[in-house]
Amino acid sequence: MKNRKNAISPTRNEDYPEWYQEVIKAADLAENSPVRGCMVIKPWGFSIWENIKKELDKRFKETGHQNAYFPLFIPKSFLEKEAEHVEGFAKECAVVTHHRLEKGKDGGLVPAGELEEPLVVRPTSETIIGAMFSKWVQSYRDLPLLINQWANIVRWEMRTRMFLRTTEFLWQEGHTVHATEKEAMEETLKMLNVYADFMESDMAMPVIKGRKTESEKFPGADITYSVEAMMQDRKALQSGTSHYLGQNFAKASDIKFLDRDEKLKYAYTTSWGVSTRLVGGLIMVHGDDDGLVLPPKLSPLHVVILPVLPNNKFKNKVFEHCDRIKKQLSKIIYNNSPLKVFVDKSEIPGGRKKWDWVKKGVPIRIEIGPKEIEKDEVTVSRRDTPAQENSSLKTGKFIKNAPTLLTSIQNSLYDNALRLLKYNTKEIKSKEDFYDFFTPRNIEKPEIHGGFVLAYFKEDEEIEKKIQEDLNVSIRCIPLEEENNKEEGKCLFTGKPTRQKVIFGKAY
Amino acid sequence: MKNRKNAISPTRNEDYPEWYQEVIKAADLAENSPVRGCMVIKPWGFSIWENIKKELDKRFKETGHQNAYFPLFIPKSFLEKEAEHVEGFAKECAVVTHHRLEKGKDGGLVPAGELEEPLVVRPTSETIIGAMFSKWVQSYRDLPLLINQWANIVRWEMRTRMFLRTTEFLWQEGHTVHATEKEAMEETLKMLNVYADFMESDMAMPVIKGRKTESEKFPGADITYSVEAMMQDRKALQSGTSHYLGQNFAKASDIKFLDRDEKLKYAYTTSWGVSTRLVGGLIMVHGDDDGLVLPPKLSPLHVVILPVLPNNKFKNKVFEHCDRIKKQLSKIIYNNSPLKVFVDKSEIPGGRKKWDWVKKGVPIRIEIGPKEIEKDEVTVSRRDTPAQENSSLKTGKFIKNAPTLLTSIQNSLYDNALRLLKYNTKEIKSKEDFYDFFTPRNIEKPEIHGGFVLAYFKEDEEIEKKIQEDLNVSIRCIPLEEENNKEEGKCLFTGKPTRQKVIFGKAY
Repeated sequence: MKNRKNAISPTRNEDYPEWYQEVIKAADLAENSPVRGCMVIKPWGFSIWENIKKELDKRFKETGHQNAYFPLFIPKSFLEKEAEHVEGFAKECAVVTHHRLEKGKDGGLVPAGELEEPLVVRPTSETIIGAMFSKWVQSYRDLPLLINQWANIVRWEMRTRMFLRTTEFLWQEGHTVHATEKEAMEETLKMLNVYADFMESDMAMPVIKGRKTESEKFPGADITYSVEAMMQDRKALQSGTSHYLGQNFAKASDIKFLDRDEKLKYAYTTSWGVSTRLVGGLIMVHGDDDGLVLPPKLSPLHVVILPVLPNNKFKNKVFEHCDRIKKQLSKIIYNNSPLKVFVDKSEIPGGRKKWDWVKKGVPIRIEIGPKEIEKDEVTVSRRDTPAQENSSLKTGKFIKNAPTLLTSIQNSLYDNALRLLKYNTKEIKSKEDFYDFFTPRNIEKPEIHGGFVLAYFKEDEEIEKKIQEDLNVSIRCIPLEEENNKEEGKCLFTGKPTRQKVIFGKAY
Repeated sequence: MKNRKNAISPTRNEDYPEWYQEVIKAADLAENSPVRGCMVIKPWGFSIWENIKKELDKRFKETGHQNAYFPLFIPKSFLEKEAEHVEGFAKECAVVTHHRLEKGKDGGLVPAGELEEPLVVRPTSETIIGAMFSKWVQSYRDLPLLINQWANIVRWEMRTRMFLRTTEFLWQEGHTVHATEKEAMEETLKMLNVYADFMESDMAMPVIKGRKTESEKFPGADITYSVEAMMQDRKALQSGTSHYLGQNFAKASDIKFLDRDEKLKYAYTTSWGVSTRLVGGLIMVHGDDDGLVLPPKLSPLHVVILPVLPNNKFKNKVFEHCDRIKKQLSKIIYNNSPLKVFVDKSEIPGGRKKWDWVKKGVPIRIEIGPKEIEKDEVTVSRRDTPAQENSSLKTGKFIKNAPTLLTSIQNSLYDNALRLLKYNTKEIKSKEDFYDFFTPRNIEKPEIHGGFVLAYFKEDEEIEKKIQEDLNVSIRCIPLEEENNKEEGKCLFTGKPTRQKVIFGKAY
């Protein structure tokens, strides 16, 4: 393999956070807007989100949920109904105080028409949805109530990063009501599994399912579960959460029902969500030093066809041939839908054109010029191998095998990500080893550190606070399969006996 | 036909506005929320909107548009860039002035963290999108730029009505940039036609395409086109608009490009939108005194199967038979997708169950009981005929012909709506006849009046103001096909010669 420059500078090793921004720019996914902390999601980035939405929405509907839409605004008094909840969100919410602008003394427009009660732009919708649910739920016959909303959310974040943490973001929030604790717990875990399944099978992103500690819970929840993924800088991305809310919000919003035994009871509720943050996860799990790498199941395009024109003489012939191949490919089914294929006829020089598509992460590129036409071949490159590598295939064979090739790419992306996760997750038994593991190897690159630690730990908020301060490390989750080990172990900090192992890591 | 009570009270004739609210309630489409002027769109209503979205989105993509997402918030200074624009929206916008809540003197939470510049919750996005476009557009090679956004919008309306006029609503807004006036005009009219085609073929709602007069234009547009439909109370619903913005917003947002002739020029822009208001249109065009009537192409369900159980002995047998028929129907293709079928096994009494589905407007209901099973028949009712009417059909024949039946329902809804429009649109030649036409026949029902007037009219803002005050009548549009008639006529108010006929009507 010859030496070459990478398409993205800096590389992941040189400066991971900066590499991330450059990939977004090179793939034309999004950009910052003039509105503080808000991003603009550009067409290529938005179509990835549309694909995520489509696949998740299908899974939500298959599990019996229906979509609805609730108000953007939440009256201040609603937010105040649940004490922990308002505590968690009051510090970062956009407040609407007026309902018009009018000419001020200096001629400029000033806010006017002050509202009697300020409205908060939803940072999440438990309280406003709860107010509606209290009307909708009267009898056990109305349960379970399984609702989902796709919406925009505003949280006034001080430090923002595109897709990962922005003032406004897009998400879905599921909100459900159940007659019993048991059913609500089942729903909470069911949706956690729906998320994990989607992320592993569609995003090719392996995740760890687990419970959050008390200090990392959603404000107002009894239990929060999350799915955590490892990015290529070995930091954790909390990719989705599912909350068992017990009766907290039912009591705050007065969601009661007449049960079969004719007694009036408070219901049990859940909520669960994932957001445009997932696009950030996709970038950081699969991207390489040449840009974005998209898992075929979520890519806006599966195959991009690049006509090769040694000179203009062949233009019509090559374009027509490319169109024919596009037409044939578009009849092939992959992942239950026809292949998405594009012929790039733009007048950009061939080299730049190829690199544009490399940077955008399209799974398969094929080049077709007079030589290929003569031999009835296509020159095929897959995005999960170095950009210079390619192979010549007979046209018919390539078309027939395109779905197999895509499946192979999808699987190899998953395998690589799983290898990263396994290789960088270490079992650790002493505090000394723990501190050593999380101390940066290279002082100039504090992002690249050990990875995840799996260790026996007895929950203790003081210790959690200390390692957060010392190392910027937190407990990502208590993996479901490690909550109650057969073998008892010793907490790595206190030596106290416990059956519970947890995952520690630095997090986005 | 025996005498019977209608499912909706009051009927359309008794009290049309109240009938409208009752249909929404009976079909469980939406309800008011505790947030002033904001509604909650419930699952049945939302799935109609999802179908509208899906069909329109397909058409937008087929015409070369891409989806993107822009910030919810617009800095006040952006809104002020276009003088007419800010004039039009300043009076009704939600203003964010603070970014957190904190404990006040009396212990309650008060807005804190005042923003340097207030933010407006988008009432439309020309200005914020324009700011991004000015970065994206540099050369003629970047044009045309064809973008669409699905988003929520806030306009602080004083008098709201569900779906038709709410403080927050959902919509799409297309925003495009072109090198020439000609191309921008073509785009404006192309999207007007996309709307009209969708409304006629999918919503079964005939529309009149036309240009708005100066006084009814979008604030900041050079020309506004609209599609206008007639509701069953003969009032007009402006159902969609398409704006030719000339260079107004290009100048306000500094959207310039280097043209082929190497000169730097301002671009030409367009914008166009439809909203959840369309759901209100569907209700008012097709609904009857038994509730909602859905055009098959947009109905969340095509066929609802109602098991008939004379007693519990037959329950399993009937349910299994119904499931089999559902399975067979679900393989049938209608409008390019499999039929959407539901078996209602709920324990609601049969009569109420049937009426629930009548009120929800499902195009086809079939009843299946032991008698039908024995004869291998189904009892079929179509929603566009009175609820008591039905016919028995052999099961196989019904299944095979279901798409034909749906097409027949779709067509009959369109034909009825077209008949209403034609029958209640009158050509009028004098002011006296005009005033007579718009004077309510029945003083207690001011909503039911003449309908639309088509007449020669020479644009005159004073006259427009006068008829608005006298009769609450406005010029809905200047129909495209009436802008330049071969025959010259006399303006019905002034007698001045003009080739232009306009549509007058009362409007939502």
